[in-house]
Amino acid sequence: MAVEKIGVGMIGYKFMGKAHSHAYKDLSMFFPQAIHPQMLVICGRDETGVKQAQEQFGWQSCETDWRKVIANPDVGLIDINAPSNVHKEIAIEAARAGKHVFCEKPLALTLADAREMLREAQQAGIKHMVGFNYRFAPAVQLARKLIAEGRIGTIRHFRAQFLQDWLTDDQFPLVWRLQKEVAGSGSHGDLNAHLIDMAHFLVGGIEEVVGMSETFVKERPKPAAMSGLSAAGAAGGEKGEVTVDDATLFLARFANGALGSFEATRFAAGRRCANTFEINGSLGSLRFDFERMNELEVYFTSDEEDVQGFRRVLATDPAHAYAEAWWPPGHTLGYEHTLIHEVVELMEAISENRQPVPNFEDGVKCQQVLDAVELSVAERRWVKVQEL
Amino acid sequence: MAVEKIGVGMIGYKFMGKAHSHAYKDLSMFFPQAIHPQMLVICGRDETGVKQAQEQFGWQSCETDWRKVIANPDVGLIDINAPSNVHKEIAIEAARAGKHVFCEKPLALTLADAREMLREAQQAGIKHMVGFNYRFAPAVQLARKLIAEGRIGTIRHFRAQFLQDWLTDDQFPLVWRLQKEVAGSGSHGDLNAHLIDMAHFLVGGIEEVVGMSETFVKERPKPAAMSGLSAAGAAGGEKGEVTVDDATLFLARFANGALGSFEATRFAAGRRCANTFEINGSLGSLRFDFERMNELEVYFTSDEEDVQGFRRVLATDPAHAYAEAWWPPGHTLGYEHTLIHEVVELMEAISENRQPVPNFEDGVKCQQVLDAVELSVAERRWVKVQEL
Amino acid sequence: MAVEKIGVGMIGYKFMGKAHSHAYKDLSMFFPQAIHPQMLVICGRDETGVKQAQEQFGWQSCETDWRKVIANPDVGLIDINAPSNVHKEIAIEAARAGKHVFCEKPLALTLADAREMLREAQQAGIKHMVGFNYRFAPAVQLARKLIAEGRIGTIRHFRAQFLQDWLTDDQFPLVWRLQKEVAGSGSHGDLNAHLIDMAHFLVGGIEEVVGMSETFVKERPKPAAMSGLSAAGAAGGEKGEVTVDDATLFLARFANGALGSFEATRFAAGRRCANTFEINGSLGSLRFDFERMNELEVYFTSDEEDVQGFRRVLATDPAHAYAEAWWPPGHTLGYEHTLIHEVVELMEAISENRQPVPNFEDGVKCQQVLDAVELSVAERRWVKVQEL
Amino acid sequence: MAVEKIGVGMIGYKFMGKAHSHAYKDLSMFFPQAIHPQMLVICGRDETGVKQAQEQFGWQSCETDWRKVIANPDVGLIDINAPSNVHKEIAIEAARAGKHVFCEKPLALTLADAREMLREAQQAGIKHMVGFNYRFAPAVQLARKLIAEGRIGTIRHFRAQFLQDWLTDDQFPLVWRLQKEVAGSGSHGDLNAHLIDMAHFLVGGIEEVVGMSETFVKERPKPAAMSGLSAAGAAGGEKGEVTVDDATLFLARFANGALGSFEATRFAAGRRCANTFEINGSLGSLRFDFERMNELEVYFTSDEEDVQGFRRVLATDPAHAYAEAWWPPGHTLGYEHTLIHEVVELMEAISENRQPVPNFEDGVKCQQVLDAVELSVAERRWVKVQEL
Repeated sequence: MAVEKIGVGMIGYKFMGKAHSHAYKDLSMFFPQAIHPQMLVICGRDETGVKQAQEQFGWQSCETDWRKVIANPDVGLIDINAPSNVHKEIAIEAARAGKHVFCEKPLALTLADAREMLREAQQAGIKHMVGFNYRFAPAVQLARKLIAEGRIGTIRHFRAQFLQDWLTDDQFPLVWRLQKEVAGSGSHGDLNAHLIDMAHFLVGGIEEVVGMSETFVKERPKPAAMSGLSAAGAAGGEKGEVTVDDATLFLARFANGALGSFEATRFAAGRRCANTFEINGSLGSLRFDFERMNELEVYFTSDEEDVQGFRRVLATDPAHAYAEAWWPPGHTLGYEHTLIHEVVELMEAISENRQPVPNFEDGVKCQQVLDAVELSVAERRWVKVQEL
Repeated sequence: MAVEKIGVGMIGYKFMGKAHSHAYKDLSMFFPQAIHPQMLVICGRDETGVKQAQEQFGWQSCETDWRKVIANPDVGLIDINAPSNVHKEIAIEAARAGKHVFCEKPLALTLADAREMLREAQQAGIKHMVGFNYRFAPAVQLARKLIAEGRIGTIRHFRAQFLQDWLTDDQFPLVWRLQKEVAGSGSHGDLNAHLIDMAHFLVGGIEEVVGMSETFVKERPKPAAMSGLSAAGAAGGEKGEVTVDDATLFLARFANGALGSFEATRFAAGRRCANTFEINGSLGSLRFDFERMNELEVYFTSDEEDVQGFRRVLATDPAHAYAEAWWPPGHTLGYEHTLIHEVVELMEAISENRQPVPNFEDGVKCQQVLDAVELSVAERRWVKVQEL
Repeated sequence: MAVEKIGVGMIGYKFMGKAHSHAYKDLSMFFPQAIHPQMLVICGRDETGVKQAQEQFGWQSCETDWRKVIANPDVGLIDINAPSNVHKEIAIEAARAGKHVFCEKPLALTLADAREMLREAQQAGIKHMVGFNYRFAPAVQLARKLIAEGRIGTIRHFRAQFLQDWLTDDQFPLVWRLQKEVAGSGSHGDLNAHLIDMAHFLVGGIEEVVGMSETFVKERPKPAAMSGLSAAGAAGGEKGEVTVDDATLFLARFANGALGSFEATRFAAGRRCANTFEINGSLGSLRFDFERMNELEVYFTSDEEDVQGFRRVLATDPAHAYAEAWWPPGHTLGYEHTLIHEVVELMEAISENRQPVPNFEDGVKCQQVLDAVELSVAERRWVKVQEL
Repeated sequence: MAVEKIGVGMIGYKFMGKAHSHAYKDLSMFFPQAIHPQMLVICGRDETGVKQAQEQFGWQSCETDWRKVIANPDVGLIDINAPSNVHKEIAIEAARAGKHVFCEKPLALTLADAREMLREAQQAGIKHMVGFNYRFAPAVQLARKLIAEGRIGTIRHFRAQFLQDWLTDDQFPLVWRLQKEVAGSGSHGDLNAHLIDMAHFLVGGIEEVVGMSETFVKERPKPAAMSGLSAAGAAGGEKGEVTVDDATLFLARFANGALGSFEATRFAAGRRCANTFEINGSLGSLRFDFERMNELEVYFTSDEEDVQGFRRVLATDPAHAYAEAWWPPGHTLGYEHTLIHEVVELMEAISENRQPVPNFEDGVKCQQVLDAVELSVAERRWVKVQEL
């Protein structure tokens, strides 16, 4: 039987565009049974830039008008990793054209937009996916499995932090991610979004929240020039206002009675990309830190009483998700593998004619909590998620 | 010159009584220059129990009436580690008798009581100390020193958790610590008290808080018999109501602009005594976990760019607090040493005719934040600490 | 300017064949300036197997006769990852045909063979490389840099262990790796080879050695069937003799006066792939464990005396080797990236018309130490490496 | 029933004298059922020094002539922690006087002397103990228990290192520990002695060894003055020869077939007191590092296949040795507790009229291996332990 193929058109070609391209490129080598993505066309506004990306990443062609990509009859899947403020328009047009959509997080800038995207996708009957890639680390998949099998018992606590440090220096320039009109939000939408999705994946729905937000450095040097993630301070030393949050923390109550604590910051010196969680249940506990993404720490109350302790489980054994596709035990994976696994899920869902997970519903649920926290910060009160 | 001596009368003889007794016993051996405490009399209500404690711990006599201990003219220092609900009465009477007072935390059951104790102590002109022993781990002293010297820069974040797990099993019996009328509070007063004091010690004053509290297991088997920390479930299986919190979390804003996140729980399976904090500043970060109490993790943004990373500093070098009194580098200390160092501070303060630190003022400040959190939980709102 | 290209012919298509194929496939996406390898032809004895590999890994064609691959005029580089006992013949024929050769370790089964391969390669004037991939972990590159820049000072100690555990169960079947005639050697040639190369890379030449070897489980069930790395015990339960070492340890003296301790075993329960080293110098120390391959622990004696401790450096910062080609700081790499970096070195060497490192000279030097240890084990004495 | 008492006379009053004194002082408080040691007399050659020690450590009297201590009819136990070169004479005289003897390691400077001491002690019928205190860390006791109960299976590997760093700086002065005539040996007798005893305790007898030794810094500044552990370089900068080993490594074969690797050094920068071991068995593995002495890492091959990993066991639970005498779970112990537990064993042995463990037989066995290694180093060959 011939393996199915699907033509992919990608909108966006920067950091996430590269990561997604790599996922499509590597997929069939490690997961040969999955539908084979055909890297047909990559699209960006800057003709030189996208042309270079096309060649470097291995796409067949490039394009500057995303409508033409959607119109291309060979394209069956639209991958959106362009800036967040264009997600909605592209996703809806793609859905209306009957194309499957894989959209980076955040799904949209507002909850209303996210809901509209979901509605359109559902009406069109397409497959839709949202890029919460951290779910796809094998160690996180193991956490999910242990919880689903009841091996951790009733969950009491979920405490999660996404700690980065790239803004610690107050002379770091005013890049676009620090401007609300472009980025929508700061650490909250960027980092808490991942934590909230992780909470949904592992614990379940959140009922109410109360939060706190801060912009520690309110003015930064305007960059002289800016490209991608890098930027240099202006010669004139002119400053501009930072209009997003540097850090946002919130407490949460889950529908199942668990208590949650969330924190996102870009000011945690020494923490490069510490996307961490700890879960305490009635039968055990789990701990994860993305900086050691191959490991899950696992504790069971049922262990013999003289040898109780957190186990450092390296999720590279045959018993672990995706491990058979890769290398022998102890040969670890990296960040980019989460993207590849994400695409595996997408291809399997298309092949099995079901929705991939996480999809736009998960994107909407995440946005709802994000907005509830922002409302809580603004009004200094507890906010029920269903208020929104 | 002869070393000074001071007669000690101790009220209480259980877990903390033992820990304090040991501190007095060991003091002069390791800190010979400090005032030598004379272990004159230990006091408890149960005559058999206190007699046994007297002999085992090495006190010269025992007593069942604490007023007689205070009346003893040879006693210059009253050490109070009896149950919290008697702290106030004893401390005030001791102060009025002109005795110095070393009182275990929490200072009192209410903020009003704590303030009254402070007032009386100040009027009496005595030395007063409160038992926040975790300040005295050398690794914590190092944290304080690095902050005080400006080596961590402006503090942005303080996140602290005191995680224990002895209530994880819902068949664990209804001991007195779970009854409000006796214990005053649950994890909040027991564990958050320590975190708040640590925050005051390392970061400074807290301006406002918002909190959340939960009792996960609302009924537990009544114990058939109970002694000390152990208890066994009743044969009849009768249950009683848990009237204190199992877990309390809160967010805080410090006067200096830092953001705080606090969590206390007795349901964190696998975490035996994880009194932890992380501090992020503009020049570096610090991390501590009492389960590895000899270590402080330290990060500096000024490290050369190819060798940046958290250092695991073992606080047993000559450069570290108290180290010279103990063993060579790498020979670690344990829990009980925090108590000994606490007594060192007390004796030095008496000798230098200054207030020891932490004293009743710190006890009051801590109680104020505890109460603010409770009010926040009750009224579901942000509470300014100075409201109380 | 057009980027150069080179046609690759690969001999071998199993575990290492897949890893090498992936390196060629990903190279240009992340290192676009490097010569672009063209995946022309993959070769294996089993027609079905190699055909499937060709399709899955993305090669243009496949072949069962390796001589035809060498004869192919479009092929400029021969990649040898077939079983070790055919390395020599293929490498020499390729060299004589003027093709560059990238050969997996061990270079050959005997020192004499390895030397012959080196001589032929030198006579042919080709580029030659040997697959000691662990050098190419960015954390190991950092170790090398710190040593080269003198920041660790004079090296006193190198202690290295390569601990695996796949033979712990004595019912694990008698796979080909346990048969001397096929595998040449056991843990020694497989694992110590990597440690020796690491020692050469980081410390320098070894002068003399004394070793010890053991086969703990001398008979194992013959496998009913065997494919790749998997095998199942025979139904009849017939047993066969294990003819290679399960573990080999040796002490070494380096030319520069440092002391070395080496250990390879497949019986270290719980250690999946712990390729570790620690280096102590007069100015600092370094520690590495491949199971946490993104990290290097670094200690400097010159750190201020109150904050001395091993730093956990995550080698994903811009200052670290290869980091700019990948993801932002804290986004870690995996096993397969060591292979990609290896190919980067190969392509750069070809482009710059110099020998890549490590090359056949390194392969010979490694084999010399391996043989010296075997001689030492056989004759129970210290052996000078230059005896061989 | 009244608890028994025993009068103690201690010879030596420096570092180990203080540690032993503290053990006697604390014993009855935490182990009230054990025989109560009476701290009768402490003895040292320097009258001022020993007088000060007497007062500081809490002894009833002091003495400068050790023969008088032995002659004292109230003394039932002689504790020897004076320099190693006087152990023999004192121990034999004490034994002949019918006193029990607790002697610090190393038992003697030569194997012949150690054997003579054992013989005399046996003839006298006294209790004798040797101070291998590391056995008494609760985590080590747990290791022993797991092995004894067969939970680790057949032991394959024991690898142990005792790494210190106080000689890393080549300007560190020529203290007495670096002079063979006084210290007997360097890192080997000091540190490997502990590792060898640990091996005997956990694995069993050693059959043969091959070793390597080095003095990296052959000359050091003569100290101007020297007291205790501290010393300062001479003003004139005069240098003297270091006559002991800086580092000694050896390989070993155990009687039960396990392979051993041992290393002692004082040049491991950053390792303050890393007394470590790892044991791999057919059913599991154990890891220990004295710098985290409350922890034992434990791995079981029988764990479910998706949650296999080393457990970090904090040996402070009620199930662990000595824990009930101390504090609640998670409240860790320190270095000095190993000494207290050692004395518990001594008192229990006296009370139960059996030999304590470890005793002079263990001291002799350790010395035998130490000497075998020295012979191996001198003659550059494998040495059978029973040769000696």
